[in-house]
Amino acid sequence: MQTYKSIIAYDGTEFKGFQRQAEGVRTVQGELENALRVIGWSESSLRAAGRTDAGVHARGQVISFCLEWRADLEGLSKALNANLPFDIAVGRTEIVAEEFHPRFLARRREYQYSLYSAPIRTPLRDRYSWRVWPEPDVERLNSAAECLIGRRDFAAFGQAPIEGGHTLREVVKAEWILRERDLIFTIVADAFLYHMVRRVVAAMISIGTGRGELSDFKKMLDDPTRRWEGAIAPPNGLSLEAVYYT
Amino acid sequence: MQTYKSIIAYDGTEFKGFQRQAEGVRTVQGELENALRVIGWSESSLRAAGRTDAGVHARGQVISFCLEWRADLEGLSKALNANLPFDIAVGRTEIVAEEFHPRFLARRREYQYSLYSAPIRTPLRDRYSWRVWPEPDVERLNSAAECLIGRRDFAAFGQAPIEGGHTLREVVKAEWILRERDLIFTIVADAFLYHMVRRVVAAMISIGTGRGELSDFKKMLDDPTRRWEGAIAPPNGLSLEAVYYT
Repeated sequence: MQTYKSIIAYDGTEFKGFQRQAEGVRTVQGELENALRVIGWSESSLRAAGRTDAGVHARGQVISFCLEWRADLEGLSKALNANLPFDIAVGRTEIVAEEFHPRFLARRREYQYSLYSAPIRTPLRDRYSWRVWPEPDVERLNSAAECLIGRRDFAAFGQAPIEGGHTLREVVKAEWILRERDLIFTIVADAFLYHMVRRVVAAMISIGTGRGELSDFKKMLDDPTRRWEGAIAPPNGLSLEAVYYT
Repeated sequence: MQTYKSIIAYDGTEFKGFQRQAEGVRTVQGELENALRVIGWSESSLRAAGRTDAGVHARGQVISFCLEWRADLEGLSKALNANLPFDIAVGRTEIVAEEFHPRFLARRREYQYSLYSAPIRTPLRDRYSWRVWPEPDVERLNSAAECLIGRRDFAAFGQAPIEGGHTLREVVKAEWILRERDLIFTIVADAFLYHMVRRVVAAMISIGTGRGELSDFKKMLDDPTRRWEGAIAPPNGLSLEAVYYT
């Protein structure tokens, strides 16, 4: 019996989020557990780095599991992929120490939010990107993104995951880039509050499109009694890109 | 009453193709006709440039319809988009001559086929791209693509649309390019036989991955009694990009 760590990618469109729910509700965890059981896994619950919401994608989710497996690691990924649906794939699998935990030991998480600007929808992009119109100004977006860097109280953009928990998070990267016609926001932090990325993105977009003021955004980051009362960016633009353990 | 021409884009994933079928079968034409009826359209059938297969996408399908419409053209596109599902969008709409016909007057059609190379599937690309492994050689692909150029008998790769019809088609562009990690094939011709692009792509891939010989491919294009007996590339990599009338 050994402990394995796998990188997982999925298209969140047809899932009610990562976390397993009642029977009959399609979740990423449910599908992964079904595939693992076929190859002999018998734990009660799978460990994962993060619980992405319904509609959120992943290219770098991390799971771990204990398994008796006699063949090689590549064979293990292949066996899992053979038992998974088209919208989940297992990438690299490796053996880790027994005490490895994908969530508790994660030091940094990287999310990406994709959007594009067009006056009408673009069906071949809409599953993975948020359509924003009018076009946001990328320099204004980055002026806002810079304010996120550092160890800050993000209470304005989310709640603590447990009662009495704090809302301090350390953001080490927050940057918008223009790639062809897409605006891509990358954010790396030690951890995130529930809905934090999607709220922060919506707030920055209000600034980038001229509806909101950078000074108000800064105030929300300086004064933890304020709240972002605006919209929340849709889930389909968001993807969990990577989880770092060192 | 005037005749309008619109550019249509759609994600083919959840359609049983363009052409209307029996009640309850979801088609692009069916959805477009429903949206048009809401704004007063009363013809029995919509005209379109091409009937894409189930799962095939479009960024540049062309439709035409007769309608009594008092507001401006932008308002017409907006009204249609408001009545269409998320996976179809109407782009530019213009007034055309009464005798305009999107299929009969089309002089050239442009299709694009996208694929990528990876040993395991990539859920966030698989809706719009065919995964091919091992990696095809782009120079070998282009050696094959060059053979398609000109007015040729494509009987090896498709049947005439009507009995007694000929299988000559004139290809004016056929080219593979590497864009980031995607291999994109663009083909422009006066018209295409049924499944022709997907068969030609599958045949070129067999050459690009070293399973097939370029000389055999050439023979199929020179001798109309031969047939491509291999696979047909999956529909999700294919998109109708544009239809040209001049």
